[in-house]
Amino acid sequence: MKDNPSPLEKSTDRRGFIQKAGTLAAGAVVAGETGLWAPRVQSQEKKKLGYALVGLGGLSTNQIAPGLEKTEHSRLAGIVSGTPSKIEKWKAKYNLPARNCYNYDNYDQIATNPDIDVIYVVLPNGMHPEYTIRGAKAGKHVLCEKPMANSASDCQAMINACKDAGKKLAIGYRCQFEPNNIECMRLAREKVFGDLKMIDAGFGFRIGNPDQWRLKADLAGGGALMDVGIYALQACRFLAGEEPVEISAQETKTDPMKFAEVDESIVWTMKFPSGVLAYCSTTYNFSGINRFSAHCDKGWFSLDPAYSYGGIKGRTSKGDVIEKPVIDQFANEMDNFSKCILEGRESQVSGEEGMRDLKVIEAIYRSIRTGRTVKV
Amino acid sequence: MKDNPSPLEKSTDRRGFIQKAGTLAAGAVVAGETGLWAPRVQSQEKKKLGYALVGLGGLSTNQIAPGLEKTEHSRLAGIVSGTPSKIEKWKAKYNLPARNCYNYDNYDQIATNPDIDVIYVVLPNGMHPEYTIRGAKAGKHVLCEKPMANSASDCQAMINACKDAGKKLAIGYRCQFEPNNIECMRLAREKVFGDLKMIDAGFGFRIGNPDQWRLKADLAGGGALMDVGIYALQACRFLAGEEPVEISAQETKTDPMKFAEVDESIVWTMKFPSGVLAYCSTTYNFSGINRFSAHCDKGWFSLDPAYSYGGIKGRTSKGDVIEKPVIDQFANEMDNFSKCILEGRESQVSGEEGMRDLKVIEAIYRSIRTGRTVKV
Repeated sequence: MKDNPSPLEKSTDRRGFIQKAGTLAAGAVVAGETGLWAPRVQSQEKKKLGYALVGLGGLSTNQIAPGLEKTEHSRLAGIVSGTPSKIEKWKAKYNLPARNCYNYDNYDQIATNPDIDVIYVVLPNGMHPEYTIRGAKAGKHVLCEKPMANSASDCQAMINACKDAGKKLAIGYRCQFEPNNIECMRLAREKVFGDLKMIDAGFGFRIGNPDQWRLKADLAGGGALMDVGIYALQACRFLAGEEPVEISAQETKTDPMKFAEVDESIVWTMKFPSGVLAYCSTTYNFSGINRFSAHCDKGWFSLDPAYSYGGIKGRTSKGDVIEKPVIDQFANEMDNFSKCILEGRESQVSGEEGMRDLKVIEAIYRSIRTGRTVKV
Repeated sequence: MKDNPSPLEKSTDRRGFIQKAGTLAAGAVVAGETGLWAPRVQSQEKKKLGYALVGLGGLSTNQIAPGLEKTEHSRLAGIVSGTPSKIEKWKAKYNLPARNCYNYDNYDQIATNPDIDVIYVVLPNGMHPEYTIRGAKAGKHVLCEKPMANSASDCQAMINACKDAGKKLAIGYRCQFEPNNIECMRLAREKVFGDLKMIDAGFGFRIGNPDQWRLKADLAGGGALMDVGIYALQACRFLAGEEPVEISAQETKTDPMKFAEVDESIVWTMKFPSGVLAYCSTTYNFSGINRFSAHCDKGWFSLDPAYSYGGIKGRTSKGDVIEKPVIDQFANEMDNFSKCILEGRESQVSGEEGMRDLKVIEAIYRSIRTGRTVKV
């Protein structure tokens, strides 16, 4: 149901992206870490955890299902959709058994299906809590798209449900599995350019169809900030390696009709405990901002574009180019979660990580509402 | 007395810069607008208004005096300094008559000197009001370095003094006479990329010597924001073509000893009447941020570096490079003021323009102090 034409692909050639990603994924299988968990499984097939996708919109169709064809430890095992015609199409295309196809009414029966190990919730944001919690109660691990929910309290309920069920929860922060973003995390963490001092980050695009769920408060929870500003926020947080403590924000609505229910454009600043400052932006009103820069004691590094599905590249103050091979971010994200499950580890993009972003997002909205610098 | 090693030159090769600038200035003389005001003057020499530089620090020595050798309508006619050895050196180097050399005590006697048409105040910020007002009272036009003063009320006093004396006042906003900045103003004003939506701008550098006047509250009026953040603010204002109405800001001090009296690093956001948002930064704590980007309805344009003495260049979303010939910004700035005087026009960088920046700067400090989004 993530049916918005995505701005994320704009900065790469789609065909080239898929071809490159396929090539690399094939290589990755050969070089994979199968040895680590081989004793736990019997067959090649059994090595792959079965994923059921909940919500068959654009993101599932164009990104996640293709990603699952490049995974080493994950496979498409089932689907959940409210649209019978979509179920028929997917069943045929991916050769899925009828018993692995669910609608929203019989979704809870997934509890008895041994083919399904993981639920991937790809619904509108406001539906994430219900389908995560029902998935956990059905005894499945849950991977949930970002933003995790419309509020931090909903995030807490999702975390509690997965804990109560003894199941793992992860959030679909694909950039944390993207090599150029990973390289920038390394440059920050290893202080290659000295101590981090300041970050600028922004992500936005011009949203199309005015009737889509992304512009409805109950389904989306917010506008540009929830949908794409969250990438800039994530970047600030993973570069700083700490949580912002004070936030100030301003918003603008130049089209109050279209953006009657959600935010159009926001700029905000953040202060971190170490003294690092960040200045950020997000918008649904124009395309072109898709970057971050990390300014350190002895230089800087930057990605622009930073958050696309492909074509991510960057520069440093040394004159170096950052341009790691294009991989399938969704494949990497899912395989990482599968390995966490198989090895009994917490995901680095856990429910707690998702909730941290929502706390900051709530602080940004609070600052706009109150006209004050607020504590997170 | 602007004796800080300047960060502004870092992005260009000094020798190449001066050579190119010299070549272009020579061309400019040939193509100049001498016809416009030729009837008013008698000789070639008389065409050039006489400037007296007040304060013979690094900026006067390295930028302004060399700039005056490339001007068409302006010439170095006198100096004012509290350091006798500097006076002797300049007198010899520029072949200045002793009657055109003043100290701070006999400065007011400049009133009777027909060689001096314009006072260029190049003192620490906190001294700008006194020497501007005394200059106006001596019957001279005044060009004053940025920031205009430590407060908007001081700016008003300077404006009043010049008005009362019937003399013109301009502020040293050299970027408004820099071809790449001028090109970006044109792109904004002519809406080449559609309506402006958002601006990001920042300027900072790591300041050296902890004993310099720039770190003293009474002389500098503030820290990074007053000294270099003002360039980012200026860029936002001349791109938007309107005044910001609401501002929010946060600061950090990671070295409270060095920055005991003035600000170290600030990030701030601004909202303009049309709905344009800006997000900005300034710092005295690290080098590397020297840019602005203007994000419009149909694309963007950007300068990086944006505020240096040379080497300024940019890009646009169309893939075009913005790289106009390097000129001497100070020469252009002074010649523009001379032409304004000769033609009886107000300068585009008038005292009122300088005061507008101070009002915004005061709002930024007020937002930091109160933890609130403030009206300008």
